[in-house]
Amino acid sequence: MRMRYKPWAEDYLKKEPNIVDIDGSHAGQISEWFDNDQPIYIEVGSGMGQFITSLAAKHPEINFISMEREKSVMIKVLDKVIEQGLTNIKLICNDAIELNEYFNDGEVDRLYLNFSDPWPKKRHTKRRLTYKTYLALYKQILKDDGEIHFKTDNRGLFAYSLESMSQFGMYFTKINLNLHEEDNEDNIETEYERKFSDKGSRIYRMEAQFH
Amino acid sequence: MRMRYKPWAEDYLKKEPNIVDIDGSHAGQISEWFDNDQPIYIEVGSGMGQFITSLAAKHPEINFISMEREKSVMIKVLDKVIEQGLTNIKLICNDAIELNEYFNDGEVDRLYLNFSDPWPKKRHTKRRLTYKTYLALYKQILKDDGEIHFKTDNRGLFAYSLESMSQFGMYFTKINLNLHEEDNEDNIETEYERKFSDKGSRIYRMEAQFH
Repeated sequence: MRMRYKPWAEDYLKKEPNIVDIDGSHAGQISEWFDNDQPIYIEVGSGMGQFITSLAAKHPEINFISMEREKSVMIKVLDKVIEQGLTNIKLICNDAIELNEYFNDGEVDRLYLNFSDPWPKKRHTKRRLTYKTYLALYKQILKDDGEIHFKTDNRGLFAYSLESMSQFGMYFTKINLNLHEEDNEDNIETEYERKFSDKGSRIYRMEAQFH
Repeated sequence: MRMRYKPWAEDYLKKEPNIVDIDGSHAGQISEWFDNDQPIYIEVGSGMGQFITSLAAKHPEINFISMEREKSVMIKVLDKVIEQGLTNIKLICNDAIELNEYFNDGEVDRLYLNFSDPWPKKRHTKRRLTYKTYLALYKQILKDDGEIHFKTDNRGLFAYSLESMSQFGMYFTKINLNLHEEDNEDNIETEYERKFSDKGSRIYRMEAQFH
């Protein structure tokens, strides 16, 4: 998600220390931060936050984490959290590669990847969020039966992810190769998804677990 | 592949006992039948035979088996084999479920599934050629690093197969979610593929192995 750089974003985020972790102060103590033992669902790369705030509003029995490294984007998520008065969502401002600094082994129930950067060039393969380095991180922090839910309009990234994840020893419990033409009543759209689906792009989706 | 029933098909096939096994007489002795030790590639459900006869003509260093249960269809494959004078292909007239009667454990290098019957109804799941019963058969007769190459225009069957195969412990080395728009210079089209691709249908393709 690219957006105009906002020099004031950091100060803006710092004003809500009970919602936003900007400096890793809650690393390793996320459940303590929520102050309850509800299941934890993370979205890595939340963009404008439409998806995760909708989900959080719908599921008060779950704790949600929005992880996003771009401060200029995260302010949009924060605005939605405050507007809707959501108390079951926290924002972590950092890169996905730091996930295991924040979460203990087996602490997480579900991880969402929505419309991640496809990094289409072969030399950028390692940056894709379904590259094996990231899968190893996800495996570490997820429960044994934890799930990854992945959605994209990028055909190449989806095919790559099916290869990479199966090679890593993951299996797929649900795959949609054209989500908006299939059974999708529970689907919560992201801003990006709405825009590209309206243009006629196919949306691909999978649910996956580790063997 | 449905085709008008031809009562004379059985007699027609029986006239070429060195090409067609109609009664299991070569079961367990396929390499002996070829009388050489070349790798063995099988196509399960060969339809009219365009795919496997093209491949056999291109690769004399491989032994090909066309397995097809419909005699009325198999005569079309036989005609192509005779017309082209191919000596590296044999036809087995039987159901895929009998594969392990014909092939010894670990004897087969590659297995092709092209445009298999999608059996779209849930109650027919067990008939799909990527249901776990069939995968267990394939695993048994394939070498440890043996490959399954699968192609279909049926979105539901492809999604199901990715789920079923990954759950069985398979991984994907190559996936195409729109074959005719991607790198496909080695692709050999089947009759069915040509027809449906010309109509604008997407062709899906994967290469898979067992962990």
